Amino acid sequence: MEENNDNIQFQISDELIEKVEHLIDSRKDEDILEFLIEFHYADVAEILEELNVEQATYVIKLLDSEKTSDILVELDDDTREKILQNLSAKEIAEEIEELDTDDAADMISELPDERQEAVISQIIDEEHKAEIEELLAYDENTAGGLMAKELVSVNENWTVTQCVKEMRAQAENVTRVHSIYVVDDNEKLLGRLSLKDLLVANPRAHITSVYIPKVDSVHVNEEAEDVARIMQKYDLEAIPVVDDNYKLLGRITIDDIVDVIKEEAEKDYQLAAGITQGVEADDSIIELTRARLPWLFLGLIGGVGAALIMGDFEHMLKDYAVLFFFTPLIAAMAGNVGVQSSAIIVQGLANDDVRGSVNNRLIKEMLLAALNGIILATFLFLFVWIYKNDIYTALAISVSLVIVIIVAGLIGTFVPLFLDKRGIDPAIATGPFITTSNDIFGILIYFWIAKLILHI
Amino acid sequence: MEENNDNIQFQISDELIEKVEHLIDSRKDEDILEFLIEFHYADVAEILEELNVEQATYVIKLLDSEKTSDILVELDDDTREKILQNLSAKEIAEEIEELDTDDAADMISELPDERQEAVISQIIDEEHKAEIEELLAYDENTAGGLMAKELVSVNENWTVTQCVKEMRAQAENVTRVHSIYVVDDNEKLLGRLSLKDLLVANPRAHITSVYIPKVDSVHVNEEAEDVARIMQKYDLEAIPVVDDNYKLLGRITIDDIVDVIKEEAEKDYQLAAGITQGVEADDSIIELTRARLPWLFLGLIGGVGAALIMGDFEHMLKDYAVLFFFTPLIAAMAGNVGVQSSAIIVQGLANDDVRGSVNNRLIKEMLLAALNGIILATFLFLFVWIYKNDIYTALAISVSLVIVIIVAGLIGTFVPLFLDKRGIDPAIATGPFITTSNDIFGILIYFWIAKLILHI
Repeated sequence: MEENNDNIQFQISDELIEKVEHLIDSRKDEDILEFLIEFHYADVAEILEELNVEQATYVIKLLDSEKTSDILVELDDDTREKILQNLSAKEIAEEIEELDTDDAADMISELPDERQEAVISQIIDEEHKAEIEELLAYDENTAGGLMAKELVSVNENWTVTQCVKEMRAQAENVTRVHSIYVVDDNEKLLGRLSLKDLLVANPRAHITSVYIPKVDSVHVNEEAEDVARIMQKYDLEAIPVVDDNYKLLGRITIDDIVDVIKEEAEKDYQLAAGITQGVEADDSIIELTRARLPWLFLGLIGGVGAALIMGDFEHMLKDYAVLFFFTPLIAAMAGNVGVQSSAIIVQGLANDDVRGSVNNRLIKEMLLAALNGIILATFLFLFVWIYKNDIYTALAISVSLVIVIIVAGLIGTFVPLFLDKRGIDPAIATGPFITTSNDIFGILIYFWIAKLILHI
Repeated sequence: MEENNDNIQFQISDELIEKVEHLIDSRKDEDILEFLIEFHYADVAEILEELNVEQATYVIKLLDSEKTSDILVELDDDTREKILQNLSAKEIAEEIEELDTDDAADMISELPDERQEAVISQIIDEEHKAEIEELLAYDENTAGGLMAKELVSVNENWTVTQCVKEMRAQAENVTRVHSIYVVDDNEKLLGRLSLKDLLVANPRAHITSVYIPKVDSVHVNEEAEDVARIMQKYDLEAIPVVDDNYKLLGRITIDDIVDVIKEEAEKDYQLAAGITQGVEADDSIIELTRARLPWLFLGLIGGVGAALIMGDFEHMLKDYAVLFFFTPLIAAMAGNVGVQSSAIIVQGLANDDVRGSVNNRLIKEMLLAALNGIILATFLFLFVWIYKNDIYTALAISVSLVIVIIVAGLIGTFVPLFLDKRGIDPAIATGPFITTSNDIFGILIYFWIAKLILHI
């Protein structure tokens, strides 16, 4: 048994891909099957992503749908879409039959509308079909969109023995049991029971006397992000989903929540970096351009704005050219401070630990920015003084820097808080938006203050 | 039972905090206990975070250590540190007794060195003490640092009945069983068994005949990030940890991995935003300054560099002042493109889907940047042409922009790939580092190209 017991260290290699490609191209079906049987479906998915669509489709058609359904779920969206295009509605329906309802509904919802119906009509298991259709009706960003219908539930009036028997039958279809949910005759959720409790209980006892009458649940319309927050906070591995009348509708497990958390984090990160969400390094140049160009265009407008402002102060060029040399510095500092303060607020809001009044936040950020600004301005003052041997210019530039930093910090703090209050995702306030507006404000304030100090 | 069955919707309110403060200040111990008993320990932790240290400590001393140990684990690091300072070594040891070994080791490792020993010596349960000491020896960023000693393992030679009996005893100490691990007489990991399998098996069968001889495991020195990646990829809810000889040492569960994923994402986000990792909106001004100032200082140096470059081209001021007006635009675009391309690479590396050669990446980014650059430069060309009525200046500025964008994209792509190859976290390449270097390169290239085109 030694050989089965390795630490997981799957690493895809060029040789491996070449070997698979060779086997496929020479149509050695037996060898392909024998070779791929060794791999976990998640590994096979990684291999398929490196092949071309024809090769990947060939493998999917060759393997048993029990394995291919799992592989399809693991594939990245683009590859899956392409492969599914090469499969008939009937073939897709066969994959769907093997999947849990949540994965099945997700896969169907990615198909073009007209194909969705064709695939659904080919599903033979009527119960599975009805459940998938139910799930398809929920918004994908809610508890309903995350949950699976697969769960183990028992009636409060059963005995432990009846329950174990029934549970065995139900558990056939449930990959991980976690909790057994206890319901009344109307399917209303009453409580839960762990497998451990069941193992320990007297077989003749009634469920009513052994179950835990306290169970956390979420409403089917609860937002996915909130479900993630709840499950994390209370360290839950599964949570039942109910309707207005506490009727048990489904169950969400922690692995789905891990995906929500990752997607949320990636979205915020991409917004901060000025990329429209959802692109990957491997997407096409057109897709990547579409994700990046709008944000760059925003930066272009900001830069043009800055140029126009500087044009307005052109009369200062003759005597104070050095002021113009520091405009990139001012713009950069305004941008950096804005990104820092907005990122802290966005992250605090995401973790639900930004409490207290907006005014207190702004006062704190003002003090913080002033402290940072004064330290930085002192260095800049000394540099400009030595560099240009002009104490007034040095003073004008460094005082401006302090004020620009304070304003940038306040904007960076206020905007995400304001957006959040208005129900808009505050993460869009980080990155190019804050940078661009702070560039313009920064340069405008800079020249105003300099003008004031230098009496021009 | 109705009242226990609410959807989770705990929301902390000012009234709630005031009520708790009032109860504590008037020392109404019975009322405090009665009031707080209703709440989940994670909710009590949230409440304590809103109180002052004396009040929070009072509550911790008042409640039963079975509940307070869980509350302490949920508290944020700062609050926990302050409360633990107010507890004696013996009191902390009592909390530790109640905790699982992984949480216990984490809590002890946060204490000052001299207190660690004092607390450990006060732990009464010798086995618990030895296990915690074992865990404290592992690096916190490895599988050993994440794992708990609590798990259920059975010997391959036992019968199912023996196993159930033994399991019941062991399961007392294990919050969630997930899998039962099967070992030989030397504690070597052989396979696993699910509770479901155990429920279904013939009671007189031997474990050897019913267990699954294939089990994924990780080595105790595996990096935490890699463990997270493995558990996500293979959808594992728990994974056993082994040493070089496959001896079963402990177990990592998915809830610990959720924390690793979140921390990793927050770290990358903060690096991209130019904040030293680990600060929160609620930290003190001094802590926040320490986290933000170094990155701003980097920006300051970049800005001074840009100013020096512009000083070098001062002779162009007389005839081509407009060139200087567009330096913030050039710097901003160079920075934005650099952040975009580095963020895509960093995220790709984190998700392990950046494959293929560095050259191909660079060629792709060059094409992408050229496409973006040409589109943006066309707009800029038209604007400058109309604004200044000077086609050569317009041409100089827009051609420079294209080249600056291409170079910025290449730097943004190359640097994180280079750092990653060198084993350095590529996330530090996003944010201020890339912005600052791209600012300087951008402005330098901009003036060179302009000089070339305008024949100055």
